[in-house]
Amino acid sequence: MKKIAVDAMGGDYAPQAIVEGVNQALSDFSDIEVQLYGDEAKIKQYLTATERVSIIHTDEKIDSDDEPTRAIRNKKNASMVLAAKAVKDGEADAVLSAGNTGALLAAGFFIVGRIKNIDRPGLMSTLPTVDGKGFDMLDLGANAENTAQHLHQYAVLGSFYAKNVRGIAQPRVGLLNNGTESSKGDPLRKETYELLAADESLNFIGNVEARDLMNGVADVVVADGFTGNAVLKSIEGTAMGIMGLLKTAITGGGLRAKLGALLLKDSLRGLKKQLNYSDVGGAVLFGVKAPVVKTHGSSDAKAVYSTIRQIRTMLETDVVAQTAREFSGE
Amino acid sequence: MKKIAVDAMGGDYAPQAIVEGVNQALSDFSDIEVQLYGDEAKIKQYLTATERVSIIHTDEKIDSDDEPTRAIRNKKNASMVLAAKAVKDGEADAVLSAGNTGALLAAGFFIVGRIKNIDRPGLMSTLPTVDGKGFDMLDLGANAENTAQHLHQYAVLGSFYAKNVRGIAQPRVGLLNNGTESSKGDPLRKETYELLAADESLNFIGNVEARDLMNGVADVVVADGFTGNAVLKSIEGTAMGIMGLLKTAITGGGLRAKLGALLLKDSLRGLKKQLNYSDVGGAVLFGVKAPVVKTHGSSDAKAVYSTIRQIRTMLETDVVAQTAREFSGE
Repeated sequence: MKKIAVDAMGGDYAPQAIVEGVNQALSDFSDIEVQLYGDEAKIKQYLTATERVSIIHTDEKIDSDDEPTRAIRNKKNASMVLAAKAVKDGEADAVLSAGNTGALLAAGFFIVGRIKNIDRPGLMSTLPTVDGKGFDMLDLGANAENTAQHLHQYAVLGSFYAKNVRGIAQPRVGLLNNGTESSKGDPLRKETYELLAADESLNFIGNVEARDLMNGVADVVVADGFTGNAVLKSIEGTAMGIMGLLKTAITGGGLRAKLGALLLKDSLRGLKKQLNYSDVGGAVLFGVKAPVVKTHGSSDAKAVYSTIRQIRTMLETDVVAQTAREFSGE
Repeated sequence: MKKIAVDAMGGDYAPQAIVEGVNQALSDFSDIEVQLYGDEAKIKQYLTATERVSIIHTDEKIDSDDEPTRAIRNKKNASMVLAAKAVKDGEADAVLSAGNTGALLAAGFFIVGRIKNIDRPGLMSTLPTVDGKGFDMLDLGANAENTAQHLHQYAVLGSFYAKNVRGIAQPRVGLLNNGTESSKGDPLRKETYELLAADESLNFIGNVEARDLMNGVADVVVADGFTGNAVLKSIEGTAMGIMGLLKTAITGGGLRAKLGALLLKDSLRGLKKQLNYSDVGGAVLFGVKAPVVKTHGSSDAKAVYSTIRQIRTMLETDVVAQTAREFSGE
């Protein structure tokens, strides 16, 4: 039985979206057990599942504007903190939250704990490509600064994930850089390039540019946390901006445009679905001792469901334990 | 008379697109004079303008895959090099090229020359926002590494441009960071934040995130060259990817979707136009002694025309000379 600790109180639509996602997941996956941390009365309003689910009541929760590290330290009974502690204490195998990202990262670092020999766990997501296959990118912002050694570890971690969870036999690893030539970049990129090229366990394909990510130029893209964060947010902002402009173009285009949009509805819905990250799950804090997964703050029940499915796959393939063995040299 | 040196041989559609853009600009703007550098016979095939235009013939040109600095040094008679030399020698007031970006940057640094007290000229473009007003961002990749002092200079340069060329009285300057709180970022961002906050000549609005750029969160966005380059290419890649997906959704959506697209045609064309950078001109290498402007390699005649219009405005407002006075403390 895979035990998943769920912070029921984090995110814009908590606890409803969280609990409804859990209901669906429990009904589809008979090999998971869910512990819901949060306000029992509120959770019960939405909980329809009756088996393999328990509620651990707490009144406290971390807010989206709480200072992360302080919140983790001071709100000892917050739903997110209790969920992370359950993993530390061996009562659960993974944590899921839609709450304060910084606080979840802090809970991952300080409560769940780093894997031995992994210096800086990184935040990783599967992002969309035009062919629908997606690519994994890390670090998306768990760190503001990284060394070449960290980036090398991200390449190994990302490859492990792509192999085990996404079933890609030889994941193509690219280093995000300001040009494709091997001589490109600042000293950090040049040093990282050498490390990745020298590591024969990796299928390193060289430097990749942000322009080509959505075309699926690599399966795993390695970046420092600052740049990765900027790229992720650029992709999100541009996608939202264009979809907004598209909507304005249609609604502002008069009857003719509205009729056109009506005819195009199914196609446009398909496009939106393709751009929607939530189908592939949440962002994984990779490099800590158990899956710590952040689903978007605006997640609906379906996104929560997808993230539980992702966690289930991570537990089934034992990707974190394998990573730990690899890095500890056992 | 404003004298513009144009590299007629750079870009995917040279010399045709370049010369046709020049024809249109000469017909619309009676206060400009254009010097076309390149293959005289080929240029003449497309040149219809007869006044205020001259051809300076050369057989040599810089290719898109030439190593920039070496190309500038070795191809002394390349069209781009001769155009830059014309500015250095006082025969022209500005350079325009659609060719090899790195080579044009090198020509700007080494031939046109830096403005006194500006350490690292930065590449700046006006990028699209949903409200159509756009924002200026720099450095977009002229440098792989920057210090806080460079970023401070970019804030001043960007403000100057937004004020003089775009007519924004008090340009809102934002520092690209991994969060909006003042404490965010790596040491480079923290140091830059202090410098910008302390400079009373700037309308510094604090940190901005890449997610909000397209919503027009700032008029001028300051970034180091590595991150700026990654953000620019992420925006480009995402916009191209989504427009491609939209096309696929329509053409793959059967008769119904095609009919819908037909009705939506005008609205979609408006959207594409709004996302098209080329209407506002090219990327300016800001911090050198004259306007050195790169228009996209895939520029058509209209984009070349828009870039000439932009250069004309830069010369009219004397923004580069003003910048030079500001930085030399005269």
